[in-house]
Amino acid sequence: MPQYANNPDRKTWLTVPENSDFPIQNIPFGVFLTKEDVITIGTRIGDFAIDMGALQQLGYFDDLGLPDDMFLQDSLNDFIAYGKKTWRQVRNRLSDLFEINNPTLRDNEEQRKIVIFHVHDVEMLLPVQIGDYTDFYSSKEHATNVGKMFRDPENALLPNWLHIPVGYHGRSSTIIPSGVPVHRPLGQTLPADATTPVFGPSKLVDFELEMAFITTDANVMGEPVPIHEAEDYIFGMVLFNDWSARDIQKWEYVPLGPFLAKNFASSISPWIVIMDALEPFRVASPAQNPQPLPYLQQEGNHAFDIHLEVALQPENSTETVISRSNFKYMYWTMAQQLAHHTINGCRVNSGDMMGSGTISGPTEDSFGSMLELTWGGKNPLRLSDGSERKFIQDNDTVILRGYCQNERVRIGFGECSSKLLPAVSFNV
Amino acid sequence: MPQYANNPDRKTWLTVPENSDFPIQNIPFGVFLTKEDVITIGTRIGDFAIDMGALQQLGYFDDLGLPDDMFLQDSLNDFIAYGKKTWRQVRNRLSDLFEINNPTLRDNEEQRKIVIFHVHDVEMLLPVQIGDYTDFYSSKEHATNVGKMFRDPENALLPNWLHIPVGYHGRSSTIIPSGVPVHRPLGQTLPADATTPVFGPSKLVDFELEMAFITTDANVMGEPVPIHEAEDYIFGMVLFNDWSARDIQKWEYVPLGPFLAKNFASSISPWIVIMDALEPFRVASPAQNPQPLPYLQQEGNHAFDIHLEVALQPENSTETVISRSNFKYMYWTMAQQLAHHTINGCRVNSGDMMGSGTISGPTEDSFGSMLELTWGGKNPLRLSDGSERKFIQDNDTVILRGYCQNERVRIGFGECSSKLLPAVSFNV
Repeated sequence: MPQYANNPDRKTWLTVPENSDFPIQNIPFGVFLTKEDVITIGTRIGDFAIDMGALQQLGYFDDLGLPDDMFLQDSLNDFIAYGKKTWRQVRNRLSDLFEINNPTLRDNEEQRKIVIFHVHDVEMLLPVQIGDYTDFYSSKEHATNVGKMFRDPENALLPNWLHIPVGYHGRSSTIIPSGVPVHRPLGQTLPADATTPVFGPSKLVDFELEMAFITTDANVMGEPVPIHEAEDYIFGMVLFNDWSARDIQKWEYVPLGPFLAKNFASSISPWIVIMDALEPFRVASPAQNPQPLPYLQQEGNHAFDIHLEVALQPENSTETVISRSNFKYMYWTMAQQLAHHTINGCRVNSGDMMGSGTISGPTEDSFGSMLELTWGGKNPLRLSDGSERKFIQDNDTVILRGYCQNERVRIGFGECSSKLLPAVSFNV
Repeated sequence: MPQYANNPDRKTWLTVPENSDFPIQNIPFGVFLTKEDVITIGTRIGDFAIDMGALQQLGYFDDLGLPDDMFLQDSLNDFIAYGKKTWRQVRNRLSDLFEINNPTLRDNEEQRKIVIFHVHDVEMLLPVQIGDYTDFYSSKEHATNVGKMFRDPENALLPNWLHIPVGYHGRSSTIIPSGVPVHRPLGQTLPADATTPVFGPSKLVDFELEMAFITTDANVMGEPVPIHEAEDYIFGMVLFNDWSARDIQKWEYVPLGPFLAKNFASSISPWIVIMDALEPFRVASPAQNPQPLPYLQQEGNHAFDIHLEVALQPENSTETVISRSNFKYMYWTMAQQLAHHTINGCRVNSGDMMGSGTISGPTEDSFGSMLELTWGGKNPLRLSDGSERKFIQDNDTVILRGYCQNERVRIGFGECSSKLLPAVSFNV
C-alpha cells in the first residue's frame, strides 16, 4: 500500500502553525473527551482535535470493513488489534480527507462543526487500556552512569547488560496522560548511617526521560516473535516520564527490582504517533559489540532520530530546558526488546506498553534524569529564575517534548507534562 | 449481615463426596464454558458446577439490585467491583438455594437441568481479567533459604526484608488456569565458568508453591489504603504456581529483578474461595521482630491456616507428594502487603492479583520449590516410581492442593495442575 500519507508535499485545508508537531504528515491517534461529554477516538492536525467517531458516523470509513463503533470507544485497543494494514488505511483516509484540494469535508460547514474541535476544548484521556507494562533499561549511557554512581566506576555495566535488553515489569494502573498531576509519594527510606528505616514523603523525586511503544497482539502464548517480524507488532510511540523516588528505590530494590519507587505514577503524551509516520526518520542504531545472540541480530536501520528535551518549570515561573537528548542513542532497538520479551513464549497483547528506559546521551547536558544531571545531587542545576534543583521540588512541572525533523517535514509528539504536588497527608 | 453461609451444620440437597473441598459452606466463584459453548460465572458444590448466569435469568437474584447480565460474563471483575456486601448477599443466596430443605430448585427438575453440570462437563476458564499482577516474597523461610544458597549463609536475609513486604511486578498476560500446559521456556543462560551466554531451553525449570489474592477497587490514585481497611478490599484467594526458570533467572535478574525467568507462565486454581469462607480458619501470623513501621502494624489474627501440598506426577506414572506446607507460615500478612503496595498512592483495581511469594515452612519437607527441596539440585528427590528429580522434567505435571480443615468443616481450593511440555522448536 502506498504510504502517500507521508508525502512531504501534502498540504491541508486546516490551518497548521509553523513548526507544529502535527502536520498532515503525522496523523497520530488518541482518545479525548469533548465538552458535550462524549468520549471518542480521534486524531490531531495542527491545533485541531478531530473526532473520528463522528467521522465514522458520517460514513467516512464505511468501505473499510470496520465495526460501526470502531472509533466511538474509550480506548484504541480494538483498533490496534486490527493490525498494520488497517492502521495504514485509516491514516491514508484521514490524510485524504484533510488534503487541501479535497472539498468533501472542507466545504461542509455543518459537518466540520461536528467533527473538528480546538485542542483546548477537549480533554485528552489515556489512549489505550494498558494490559501489561514493561520497562527496559536500554540506554548504555544511562546504565553506565548509574553503575558508576552506585556500583563500580571501573566496571559500571553489569555482565549481562551487553547481551540482554534488560527489562522488568511495571505497574499499568498508574500510567496517566499528560496534564494529570502526581503526588510526592510516601514510603520507607533508610537515612544515611541508619540501620532502621523511617517513614515519610520521598525526598528525592526524579523524572526519567523515556519513550514507550504500544503493541498489537503479537503471538500466542508459548511462541516467540522472530526479530524480523517484531516491528510489525509495534503500533506507535509516546513520550514517557517514569517518575521515580530515588530514596525509596535505594532501600527497596535489592533483590527483586524497583517497586514502590516507580509505581506511584508514569506520565505519557496522549497522542500515539504511529510507526508509519516515523519511517522517514529511521537511522542506524549504535554498533553492538559483542554481537548479540542470533535471536537478537538484525540488519538495516532500526533506530529513530527523535529529538528529545526536558523542561522544568517551577510554580509561577518560566521553564528551563535541563536536558536535550535523542532516542537514537538507545543501544537496544524496540525490535530487539520485543523479540527478547517473547523469546520465552511470553504473550504480548494489543495495548501493552513497553518503555525504553531512561534515555541518556553521551554528554552531561543530555542525561535523562536529575540523578544523572546533578550526579546524585552533588552538582545542582541552576534554573533560569535563579533557583537551584538537586531533584524535583513540590509544584514543579516536568515537561518532556520530542520531535523528528528533516528538510521537508517535522513529526512531533507534543508534550508530556506533569506537575509534582506535595505528599498527601496520611495518618495511620 | 449474618454469615449464615458459614454455618457448619448446613447440608445441601446435592450429593457432596466425603472430604470434598467444596461443601455448601464454601461457595467459591469461577468462570466456565459449558458444552453448549456458553461462558458463564458459576459456583461449585461437591462435584457440580452451577451456572449463575442461568440462575440469574431464572430470577434467583432479582431482588439484589444487580445488572441483568451480572453473571453472564466472561470474568468476575464487574461482580468483584460491587464489593463485600454484594459478595456476601450472593453467597448467602446460593447457600439458601442449595440448602437441603429448600424445595425451590431442588424439586424443579427442568431448572436443575439448565443450571447444574458435572464438573467434568465444563471447562474452567480464568476467573478474572487480571489488570496488574504483583508477586510478594513474604515467606521468611523461603527468603532465608534463597539467601543461604546464593548470598551469605550468615546474613541470609537482606537488610530490608524484615521492614518491607518485598514485592515486584509480574506479567498478567501469561497467568493461566489449572489444566493448561506450559512449554519449557527458551532463553539466555550463562554456563558455569563461561563469560558469554548461550541460547536454548532452560535446564532448571521449577515450580513455586504460592497463593494469590484478588482485589476489588481499593483506592483512587494517590491515596494509601490504611492497614485496618485493607482486608475489606480482598475478594478471595487461589492456589498459584509461579513457574520459574532458575538458570534464566540467575543470568538476568541483577539489577532489576526476575523477568523472562518468571513471565512465561503462572498457573492458578480456577475457583476463587472468598475470604468470608476462610474466616473460621483465621489464626495468628508469626511474631514480627523488629516491629514494623506504624503503617504496617495490625492487631488480631490476620493469617489463615491453609494446608498446602505439592505433588509431582511423571508422564504415565503415579504422583508423589513432594512438599507439605501451610499458608500460615507467611511472615507478612495480605493486609500488610496491600497496605504497603498502596502507601505511595499506587492504585489497586478490581481483578488485580497479588501472589504471596513461595511459601516454605520450617522443615525440609515443607519447602515450596525444587530449588529448596533439592538445595539447588544437590539432593535430588526420589519419586514413588523410583525416578529422581533435581528440577522439573518435560511432561511432568505439578499439582498444588490446598484446604482448611477443622472438626466441623473442610474448605478447599481444589487443584492447580499444570504439565510442563518440551520447549517449542524455534529457528531464528
